[in-house]
Amino acid sequence: MKTDPDRIAQGAQLSMLIELSSTPKPGNVDRSHDFEEIKFHHFLISAVSAYPVFRDAALGVEPAGTLIRRAVSAWRGWGLSQNTHFGTIALLVPLAKAAGRGGDLHEEVAQVLEETTAEDAVEFYAAFRIAGARVAEVEDMSLEDPTSSDRLLSEKRTLLDLMHLSSGHDLVAREWSTGFERSFALSGILKERVRDLGINDGVVIAYLEALAQVPDGLVASKFGPAKAEEASCRARAILGREVSETLRLAGDLDDEFIEEDVNPGSTADIIGAALFIALMEGSILRSEEG
Amino acid sequence: MKTDPDRIAQGAQLSMLIELSSTPKPGNVDRSHDFEEIKFHHFLISAVSAYPVFRDAALGVEPAGTLIRRAVSAWRGWGLSQNTHFGTIALLVPLAKAAGRGGDLHEEVAQVLEETTAEDAVEFYAAFRIAGARVAEVEDMSLEDPTSSDRLLSEKRTLLDLMHLSSGHDLVAREWSTGFERSFALSGILKERVRDLGINDGVVIAYLEALAQVPDGLVASKFGPAKAEEASCRARAILGREVSETLRLAGDLDDEFIEEDVNPGSTADIIGAALFIALMEGSILRSEEG
Repeated sequence: MKTDPDRIAQGAQLSMLIELSSTPKPGNVDRSHDFEEIKFHHFLISAVSAYPVFRDAALGVEPAGTLIRRAVSAWRGWGLSQNTHFGTIALLVPLAKAAGRGGDLHEEVAQVLEETTAEDAVEFYAAFRIAGARVAEVEDMSLEDPTSSDRLLSEKRTLLDLMHLSSGHDLVAREWSTGFERSFALSGILKERVRDLGINDGVVIAYLEALAQVPDGLVASKFGPAKAEEASCRARAILGREVSETLRLAGDLDDEFIEEDVNPGSTADIIGAALFIALMEGSILRSEEG
Repeated sequence: MKTDPDRIAQGAQLSMLIELSSTPKPGNVDRSHDFEEIKFHHFLISAVSAYPVFRDAALGVEPAGTLIRRAVSAWRGWGLSQNTHFGTIALLVPLAKAAGRGGDLHEEVAQVLEETTAEDAVEFYAAFRIAGARVAEVEDMSLEDPTSSDRLLSEKRTLLDLMHLSSGHDLVAREWSTGFERSFALSGILKERVRDLGINDGVVIAYLEALAQVPDGLVASKFGPAKAEEASCRARAILGREVSETLRLAGDLDDEFIEEDVNPGSTADIIGAALFIALMEGSILRSEEG
């Protein structure tokens, strides 16, 4: 049975807002603190303005690349000039498309990615420029090169092809090139943690586990792989204790990361995707209330 | 020119989320604290699930009472059993309908209220029961009386008529019966405060001013009018100082109100309505960024 497109849009939006709000989430904007340049309400704007894009994704009315560009462009209409949710949008758009088709979400999303074209790649790069997102450049496809669009089209490089090129260093690209392997695995962990700890603390612990597991791509692109590995080490160091103790230490780690400008944003993006997968399975919020 | 229904839905949703998030907002759930029974993410659910209702309100496809009932019913679909945003929904639905018509928002909303029927009244009471909202009973129209629906219909009492009956003690009903007089006045104050103080602090100061001005109806319904007047006094006492000092004292007042279970929720509802009015005029978020 197909899921109502509005319900899918709500699931995507809720996953962005729950990820945003859970606290303390070391190094990212959360309920407890803003950044100097990017504030909590900026993330509210990008989550709110993405709704019609997610609904259209679920309805299957536009290609993935166009939807991603539309979502990013919509921020500007509400006065938002910062990049907030680019990575999350790039993950949630194909997931919302897949959810709109009914059937097995994991299988459907792989199909959605396979269907992307060179036009999707052109639109994605346009979105990327509008958002002012930070990722390492794809080796032979400079983002500043004005001929890139023509090359993409003439060489018929699909958006999925490009994601494969970036999958070594970019966590969002890695999700695309593995059919969202990690997002699905993390959604399982997330469901367990939320069942045991409630929504806020469950999301925080799952985020720490994700960060401990895989060095964050955004931290690596800012400071290099050694610093990203170190950030993961520090997340590992506060896990495996009483939850209350881990949460207290997460507050300290948050202060340290902010001081050092260490912002594991890609990990937060993937937690957003994992939350969406869990929400679409229907149990995550109910289980907490019960 | 008519505004895009999706933009109106986004404005309504953003106003709920910005109101929710601004902190410290003495006595209400905000970014800094949950209540025991009602948590931050419960308010996220009610804001997210209201989106299609606001869009349909803007499209003019259903009567106000039906839309209010639909919004409240939608919470249940995401596992929310508490009452979070009932008062805010009752204010934002007619405002979203009015915004969808284009023209002067203040004049249009008066027209929307005039057009309500006895069917709207029946639907509103159904919504009220679903939400488990707390308001003082309308004198001769017991909410528990199973014959009320029949009486409403046979006596042709419109939803606006019923709001007039409750306007002495309920702040939301007072907005309906005065054509949203106070919401529009507060939106002017809000715009000035946000321009001067940014979005978070501007909303907090406007909330304190609103509470100082008019005793909160929800506090009165829980503890009686004397306690509601006292809460307003205490808000007055921390205003008229340096903003940083007022905000510090607002944090203390928040602790005290929570300890005393004083929850000025109707004042928060009206700030939500005022935010929507300001957002529809288009400047409030841009002015802060500029």
